[in-house]
Amino acid sequence: MNRPWTTQRSEVVYGARPWLELTREEVKLPSGRVLRDFHQVWLSDYAIICAETDDGQVLLGRLYKHGVRDTTLIFPGGAIADGEDPLEAAKRELLEETGYEAREWRMIGKLVVHANYGAGHACFVHARGLTKAREPVQDDTEEITVEFHQRDQIRGLVERGEIVLLDCVAMIGMMRL
Amino acid sequence: MNRPWTTQRSEVVYGARPWLELTREEVKLPSGRVLRDFHQVWLSDYAIICAETDDGQVLLGRLYKHGVRDTTLIFPGGAIADGEDPLEAAKRELLEETGYEAREWRMIGKLVVHANYGAGHACFVHARGLTKAREPVQDDTEEITVEFHQRDQIRGLVERGEIVLLDCVAMIGMMRL
Repeated sequence: MNRPWTTQRSEVVYGARPWLELTREEVKLPSGRVLRDFHQVWLSDYAIICAETDDGQVLLGRLYKHGVRDTTLIFPGGAIADGEDPLEAAKRELLEETGYEAREWRMIGKLVVHANYGAGHACFVHARGLTKAREPVQDDTEEITVEFHQRDQIRGLVERGEIVLLDCVAMIGMMRL
Repeated sequence: MNRPWTTQRSEVVYGARPWLELTREEVKLPSGRVLRDFHQVWLSDYAIICAETDDGQVLLGRLYKHGVRDTTLIFPGGAIADGEDPLEAAKRELLEETGYEAREWRMIGKLVVHANYGAGHACFVHARGLTKAREPVQDDTEEITVEFHQRDQIRGLVERGEIVLLDCVAMIGMMRL
């Protein structure tokens, strides 16, 4: 039971790196049956950050996300560059997007985005001792409004539909918010 | 701030429905700048189920998932057919994959899989009063071993790397496991 599949052939059918790449694989199942068109989606790994002040406030960003087709609340983060350390990516993204730095940084988990298609990894980071360092350097694809929410109020944002992203609710799970 | 983007043009660049479809959009940002190649990934919506027995055991499945490239533990679930009610899909998938039925069914949330690319929705379902109805009807792409874990032991499976999927940790968040 639970035996692995074998990839017998793999072909890039749509390439748009560093954003996205789509591969079609020929896979052999444990039963012996061959599937000729099982796709895998490559998306870049990214960091997602639960950043807290010393008095228990969590930094969230409000912005338009095209995958949601709406404005939503997120834990900040962003793509990890090729070869970049996830914690360094998290520090860089938080400073760029929000202008905040933190005293303590810790990786708390790395998860696969989609069971069937892959779609990259989300690297979960906890930052403590948050302080404003400078003004954010936002480009026009990320017009973020920074908000602070009490730790115990964040779950209510899911119930009210202000948090709608899978990774943000996974962060709530990771952090026991 | 947080103004929406406008899609000015949309073109399917790779079609493999009902599994996957890739679209390239021309989007106009609030700044006025136009991005000519912002991709969206269509994947089918799916149900994911936290199914509990009356004595506090949660049903998990152990199986090979190609997106993970490994055997892993999951909350059961599966794709919602076109026009199908998410709760009906959850009931159908649970019975097919595991042979179990439940007395009470409740939708507890619907989340977007990826902030930038969409990638479908995960519909979170809570099922209570689980009982074995029959043998599962598994096909060779889903050789699941059913396991029962105590509610308060599930978080430990993430820490031990037995649960590695984003939606499963989001379920832990949703259900306060």
